Amino acid sequence: MVPILIAAICGVLGLVVAAFMAAYVLKQDPGSERIREISDAIKEGALAFLGHEYKILAAFVVVVAVVLGVVPNLGWLVSVAFVFGAVCSGLAGYIGISIAIRANCRTAAAAQKSLNQGLRVSFRSGAVMGMCVVGIGILGLSILFFVFHNDPNFLFIIPGYGFGASSVAIFARVGGGIFTKAADTGADIVGKVEKGIPEDDPRNAAVIADFVGDNVGDIAGMGADLFESYVDSIIATMTLGMIAAFSAVLGKALVPDMATAWFLPMVVAAGGIIASIIGIFLVRVGGKAEMGALLNALRRGTFSAAILTAIFSFLAVYFLCGTQGYGINIFWAILVGLVAGVIIGESTNFFTSYAYKPTLNIAESAQTGGGTLITTGFANGLMSTIPPVILVVIAIIVAHHFADIYGIAIAGIGMLSTLGIQDATDAYGPVADNAGGIVEMSDLPPEVRQRTDALDSLGNTTAATGKGFAIGAAGLTALALLLSYTQAVGIKLADISLLDPRVIAGIFLGVMLPAIFCAMTLNAVGKTSFSIINEVRRQFREIKGLMEGTARPDYSKSVTICTTAALKQMLAPGLLTIISPVIVGLLLGPLALAGFLVGAIACGFILAITFANAGGSWDNAKKWIETGAFGGKGSDAHKAAVIGDTVGDPMKDTSGPSLNIMIKLMSIIALVIAPVLAGFPGLL
Amino acid sequence: MVPILIAAICGVLGLVVAAFMAAYVLKQDPGSERIREISDAIKEGALAFLGHEYKILAAFVVVVAVVLGVVPNLGWLVSVAFVFGAVCSGLAGYIGISIAIRANCRTAAAAQKSLNQGLRVSFRSGAVMGMCVVGIGILGLSILFFVFHNDPNFLFIIPGYGFGASSVAIFARVGGGIFTKAADTGADIVGKVEKGIPEDDPRNAAVIADFVGDNVGDIAGMGADLFESYVDSIIATMTLGMIAAFSAVLGKALVPDMATAWFLPMVVAAGGIIASIIGIFLVRVGGKAEMGALLNALRRGTFSAAILTAIFSFLAVYFLCGTQGYGINIFWAILVGLVAGVIIGESTNFFTSYAYKPTLNIAESAQTGGGTLITTGFANGLMSTIPPVILVVIAIIVAHHFADIYGIAIAGIGMLSTLGIQDATDAYGPVADNAGGIVEMSDLPPEVRQRTDALDSLGNTTAATGKGFAIGAAGLTALALLLSYTQAVGIKLADISLLDPRVIAGIFLGVMLPAIFCAMTLNAVGKTSFSIINEVRRQFREIKGLMEGTARPDYSKSVTICTTAALKQMLAPGLLTIISPVIVGLLLGPLALAGFLVGAIACGFILAITFANAGGSWDNAKKWIETGAFGGKGSDAHKAAVIGDTVGDPMKDTSGPSLNIMIKLMSIIALVIAPVLAGFPGLL
Repeated sequence: MVPILIAAICGVLGLVVAAFMAAYVLKQDPGSERIREISDAIKEGALAFLGHEYKILAAFVVVVAVVLGVVPNLGWLVSVAFVFGAVCSGLAGYIGISIAIRANCRTAAAAQKSLNQGLRVSFRSGAVMGMCVVGIGILGLSILFFVFHNDPNFLFIIPGYGFGASSVAIFARVGGGIFTKAADTGADIVGKVEKGIPEDDPRNAAVIADFVGDNVGDIAGMGADLFESYVDSIIATMTLGMIAAFSAVLGKALVPDMATAWFLPMVVAAGGIIASIIGIFLVRVGGKAEMGALLNALRRGTFSAAILTAIFSFLAVYFLCGTQGYGINIFWAILVGLVAGVIIGESTNFFTSYAYKPTLNIAESAQTGGGTLITTGFANGLMSTIPPVILVVIAIIVAHHFADIYGIAIAGIGMLSTLGIQDATDAYGPVADNAGGIVEMSDLPPEVRQRTDALDSLGNTTAATGKGFAIGAAGLTALALLLSYTQAVGIKLADISLLDPRVIAGIFLGVMLPAIFCAMTLNAVGKTSFSIINEVRRQFREIKGLMEGTARPDYSKSVTICTTAALKQMLAPGLLTIISPVIVGLLLGPLALAGFLVGAIACGFILAITFANAGGSWDNAKKWIETGAFGGKGSDAHKAAVIGDTVGDPMKDTSGPSLNIMIKLMSIIALVIAPVLAGFPGLL
Repeated sequence: MVPILIAAICGVLGLVVAAFMAAYVLKQDPGSERIREISDAIKEGALAFLGHEYKILAAFVVVVAVVLGVVPNLGWLVSVAFVFGAVCSGLAGYIGISIAIRANCRTAAAAQKSLNQGLRVSFRSGAVMGMCVVGIGILGLSILFFVFHNDPNFLFIIPGYGFGASSVAIFARVGGGIFTKAADTGADIVGKVEKGIPEDDPRNAAVIADFVGDNVGDIAGMGADLFESYVDSIIATMTLGMIAAFSAVLGKALVPDMATAWFLPMVVAAGGIIASIIGIFLVRVGGKAEMGALLNALRRGTFSAAILTAIFSFLAVYFLCGTQGYGINIFWAILVGLVAGVIIGESTNFFTSYAYKPTLNIAESAQTGGGTLITTGFANGLMSTIPPVILVVIAIIVAHHFADIYGIAIAGIGMLSTLGIQDATDAYGPVADNAGGIVEMSDLPPEVRQRTDALDSLGNTTAATGKGFAIGAAGLTALALLLSYTQAVGIKLADISLLDPRVIAGIFLGVMLPAIFCAMTLNAVGKTSFSIINEVRRQFREIKGLMEGTARPDYSKSVTICTTAALKQMLAPGLLTIISPVIVGLLLGPLALAGFLVGAIACGFILAITFANAGGSWDNAKKWIETGAFGGKGSDAHKAAVIGDTVGDPMKDTSGPSLNIMIKLMSIIALVIAPVLAGFPGLL
């Protein structure tokens, strides 16, 4: 009991820090009237989108809850956990975005004073999101424990919480991702390409929609994604640990007892929260700040948090497991996950930053046109899968060596334990981006824009690292959930042969699914942006004086159109993800479903990295050309780079990150329906 | 003995038909002096490329043969089979291309008379290739049988033959693929984009290199690919059948005896040769031919061959297996493979022809620029994986239901048995394409060009179908080889758990490999085309009167540059493919290698389809716009479509098809080194 209490207290502490950061942000100067006017428009649009989205999600949650309740072997307690998980995830997203949409104007105003002040406001608003995610996540799990831990079916109830969180995540990520990229592409195509006006120009009717998109996609979507990874990795480890303690499926005791199976993942995660809090307070620069110092400040925070997490984890393993079971060996599994996560993040930076050769090569290839640029960038994305795959493979083998399949699961927790600060460094980027847009639209002096640009550029670097980290974590978490599923459904190691034709069939279908999912999300962005393009064109055509700057466009109309279209388009890929594992399990049986998940996880992992890094490197190749290389802005090379960016945008911000959630969601659904599938041969 | 004799006779019959077709082609009028001059330049370039390529291959073959000879548990007989396989594959490619480079001028001359006459000459030259592939393939296997079948290690000798064929195939496909697309892209970028001169314009120094590329890539490369699939599928079935007869690994008898295991796949394949010959003679149109009639003629040929193959297979199973073992059930496994292959081919057509919605949507998206066109086409490619995956999964499950894992292997033979005619319809396309180019360069009347364009367009349709068929066949063949490998290395079904961390690690690494392979081949095309672009630009700059048409470019210089660069670039991806399974097997052991192969096969299958169909649909979207849609030639939509075509070209003609060979080659290497890996735990 005591360890769970400690974890709950750490969760509360995280929320206290979030409240402190939020209070700091809110008491800053919200800027001039013009700034507030723009910020209010963004706020209104983002909240309207979230309101609509949550309404749809509420309907979905009710339907699924009823289904879970009436299906034999599942029942209403699973439903309760599911609804609770969905509410917690939604709440974390809501709080994070509420602060972000109030922080953008304050960052813009703070940037008028100094770069350092701009960083402080934007980073602290990101920290609210990060702390809410981990705080609410671990608090929710603690509450579940206190309420349900005496229930004999407890093991099958907790995955419901993860399922709820994952369901919100997939719609938030896909819906937000479609919104943000459709608005971005739509604004660019009509504004930059057709009308030749600059980015973030107030005459562009889609410009506010673009800002709204940064919030609903990159803040709420990313937060839901990481919330899901976080709770799912803990749930997967618990389930595995509990099965190991309960039964003899694995033939040996992995952890000393059921309580330790429960306590250890929670305490390790709790240690990560404390480490993240300390790390967040270490992010500060002196009076005269410049880019290198900013980046170092962020790095100091994340690396310190990682080292502290390692120390806390060692203590947790030492005191909870001692010399029983795998004993201190479990620590090595946690450590390998932690280290692999950090290196994966750094490798992403190598493949996407214009400080390194891959992105410079892509920029160079722009000289022979859009076609060669696309090919070079796509090849770079494919090539960038090497470090993450090798690192995950090493993590799997080392973690398994030290603590069997339980080791693989807890390595996932190790990777995710510094999530609080990782999410903070990630969520700050879009706030800075928004602030830059607001500055552009408010006719502030160019040096202010330069400062917000510096913050934005730093945000892009941390976002690249964060994306790599999120993908690595998703891979390990999904794998841990898969292992839990096989144990929950009662598959013994020797029962599931790789050469079983159903397993092979499952793998083929599993590998196909991420491909279809990407196709659907890419098309969704295309269709949504098409409706924005038509609206912006219409406004330029019908509103007199718009191009001359004497009339204002109808921003909210664009936001409404984008909202409606994005929410409509998010349904199909979301439902595909939720229904597929159920269909495969029912038609081909539990063995095929395991194969299906392995295929989907491996292929989803590869595609997520490829999409994220190809997209990131096109984006930065364009930025490199904009610094003056190969003819600079307006040159043919730049035009080619803009094409690359258009292709890369939905890949890196919609399809790619959504794959993270997809592989975890399908795995946790398998875990949730395991009691239904146990002993079931499949209809075919 | 008698069945193998029958198979050998059918092989000889195939070669006789090839000789008959070749004689017909060679006695046609080779055209005017100008036509012959161009054709000679193509011939010279293609033979020079092939000469250089074969020299490199010879060195490679000698090195590998020595390695195979000295490695314990393999030995010199495996080397002999390996060299023999390499020589047979090289021979089939050489004969096919020798006829093709003599048929292009004759097709051009024949097209001056009539469309029908043009079809006859080009199709018959394609038939030479198709008949050589199957004839030499089955004859080689028969010779192996007669020479070695009393050797106790016979089981481990025959895979060497497939390994030899596969090694030639990977280099032929990759090297030829790089050459053809680099020349094509280089010619287009300088000619069409920079100088604004038409396609196939004689002033373009890369134009002959482009024609040479069609021969070395699409004829020799495709032939080697299909030769490999053909012999590998037979070898996989034999090995599985023999192990099943020899030992009790599977715990039950799959086929009555070892002889039947040997004879059945050979006789089914032999039946396919006869069916293909009949099908080829059914391809004829009446006096006044138009496109629909041409397509119907080709379809009549392939469908008749498929139906005849089904009948012959039934007879083979009935007489060889009777009521013993799986008996007549084996026929159903063959049939499901045959039917799946035909439908997969047709589905490819749906996703790539501008007669259907997917490609029309892509053409429409060109209106908003290159970026959206790329995204839409890529999404289409990803979506097009659905029918092939579902069909292969059905084939696996049904074939396994009827005849266990032996059924999966023989389903692969079923799919490939009509290869003779499939390859004929495929290899005819590039001949027609070449003929069209020759017509363009020879100032012949426009109606002749219209006729060769019609032939070319028909060739594109059959090429799309053929590509789908080749991918489907590659997937099943690789799977059968993988199953053979696991049996040869002594892995029992229950030994290889999907949840073994080494298997999971293997799957992750396996899924990564096709991604890296694609990155390397895409980059190889980029680098090679860059050297061509510079050469063509140089000639335009330095040769006076070239642009005005008063001077001729130095075609052979471009061909030489392209040859050198392509052959240099083909080495890395080829060696990666050959070395990877050896490294995985030695480091992580035979179980990880099996996981590696499953991952690589599934992911390679998906990527191959995506690349082929995305590329095909961009190509045809461009062609649709060129018919006048969305502004027609020269419009912004057309410019966007040209970008799509540039991206798609290396995807559909280099990386995508090479993946077919890659997954088969890695699987057969595993089978070859199985005696070395048996009982080996892996170094790590």
